[in-house]
Amino acid sequence: MSMELVEKVLAGDRLALARLVSRIENNGAEARAALAALYPYTGRAHRVGVTGAPGTGKSTLVNEMAKVWRRQGQTVGIVAVDPTSPFSGGALLGDRIRMRDLAGDPGVFIRSMATRGSLGGLARATGDAVKVLDAAGFDIVLIETVGAGQSEVDIARTAHTVLVVEAPGFGDDVQAIKAGILEIADILVVNKADQPGAEHTARTLRAMLDLGQARRSWHPPILKTVATEGQGVAAVVEAVTQHRAYLETSGELARQERERVTAELHHLLREALVARWLRQIPDGQVDAAIERILAREVDPHTAVEELIASVS
Amino acid sequence: MSMELVEKVLAGDRLALARLVSRIENNGAEARAALAALYPYTGRAHRVGVTGAPGTGKSTLVNEMAKVWRRQGQTVGIVAVDPTSPFSGGALLGDRIRMRDLAGDPGVFIRSMATRGSLGGLARATGDAVKVLDAAGFDIVLIETVGAGQSEVDIARTAHTVLVVEAPGFGDDVQAIKAGILEIADILVVNKADQPGAEHTARTLRAMLDLGQARRSWHPPILKTVATEGQGVAAVVEAVTQHRAYLETSGELARQERERVTAELHHLLREALVARWLRQIPDGQVDAAIERILAREVDPHTAVEELIASVS
Repeated sequence: MSMELVEKVLAGDRLALARLVSRIENNGAEARAALAALYPYTGRAHRVGVTGAPGTGKSTLVNEMAKVWRRQGQTVGIVAVDPTSPFSGGALLGDRIRMRDLAGDPGVFIRSMATRGSLGGLARATGDAVKVLDAAGFDIVLIETVGAGQSEVDIARTAHTVLVVEAPGFGDDVQAIKAGILEIADILVVNKADQPGAEHTARTLRAMLDLGQARRSWHPPILKTVATEGQGVAAVVEAVTQHRAYLETSGELARQERERVTAELHHLLREALVARWLRQIPDGQVDAAIERILAREVDPHTAVEELIASVS
Repeated sequence: MSMELVEKVLAGDRLALARLVSRIENNGAEARAALAALYPYTGRAHRVGVTGAPGTGKSTLVNEMAKVWRRQGQTVGIVAVDPTSPFSGGALLGDRIRMRDLAGDPGVFIRSMATRGSLGGLARATGDAVKVLDAAGFDIVLIETVGAGQSEVDIARTAHTVLVVEAPGFGDDVQAIKAGILEIADILVVNKADQPGAEHTARTLRAMLDLGQARRSWHPPILKTVATEGQGVAAVVEAVTQHRAYLETSGELARQERERVTAELHHLLREALVARWLRQIPDGQVDAAIERILAREVDPHTAVEELIASVS
């Protein structure tokens, strides 16, 4: 049943694709088998992360970028992620409505992902959804996240090229500094560039970049857009293409990929080792250690050393 | 040598305290022994997390809160954490200068912590520094962080009482929504309440709270302050005292503590198990698995299953 779904996804069936992504969100064992089967087909899409604070217009920008790529004959998968509280569920709905003009196009696939419980779970599900879109043959996979948190940085790191979107009028603060997200930006976009303060925002970004990133061999361009009118969007797409070329010729693409795989392997190892160890230890022994720590009879480090020694 | 330091810290030696916190930042094995020795003396301080975006005036608020507690005869330790990029190092320096009027008071200890490499490392070092201040006998330990990221949420969670500081004039966005930080707020402070828009900010916060938090038995108060003039600060300190009483009478304090210890134990177990496993596996076997994943001969999940099976 799941393998049938995999075949349909590989054959370009959009309904099967939507269904598989839903299963991945629910994290079934079945979904894992499907991911394993799809894995050999991954690694071809260019993954583009787009992040920025709410209100910077990044959804509109993503929308317009997708249109430019479509005109160039490229297929586009979009994963829109909102790791913020359930309060902001409305924003995603708004994004979907805004993206309606792309929805009839079979060369575009749009999927929203929301937090269900843990942020870690969302990062995993997003990473897996991106792999599925990659295997399904999309040339470009756009990962759109609300900016600023560590989890968003993690999600953005699954991308080859990271765009950070700013907009004027957020007071004196440039949003990006808040979580050091500027350091992972490959391309900076000042959207709403027709509004007052756009030039100031661009200059501030330039100054911050000059301050911190002299060591990088790729110098992030700062581009101005008015996404609602499509203005400047082709230049952003062109910058992504240039960054892709830079990644390939510099060997950075292969290095990134190796780093990503290494991090994923270590993460999965960690989870698997803890699960295995917990199956081996007698019931109640971990709880007993917690009680002793609470009673301050032992400190956490010593308790862990004792627990591990008791099993092996 | 380290035990001598521990004894001095327990005896109230401030210089020894500063030295021990530095060692903790550098994560030496020596520091771990000191932490184990101090652990029995922890659990007495009330830990108060204060978080908010840059520019909300939270450092000034922390400063003024410390003064109120000092007038009540309480000793105060302050850990100021900045998990944002190295760019913002200047802000911390500014905070220190602003806190100068507290510096001559032996009942106050102020320490800034900055990211050195990983955010995870910062969260650990901060948690350890808080334990040391607790063991050193401070009645109140204030943990001040720049708001919005997941790592800051983690740091704030080491606190018993979490204050989220907002200020008017950040555009229409209320900063807290960005990382769902509102859900962990026990007390909300609208600082700079003499500026236009303060009432609007307070109303927005109230509406958001009413929307999401009906299930909580503690209803977070929303308090207005002008920290630069000390206005409203005594009421914030009083709210912290009330929250502390609520935690004690409701049994929430014990539940929180258990949850915190459980999370810490699991985290340390994870790290220790991976370290032990990596010592057991033959050199090169993990690297070989990474190569096979990169070549798409195997998916990451299957590779991990094979690696684990090969050792046990």
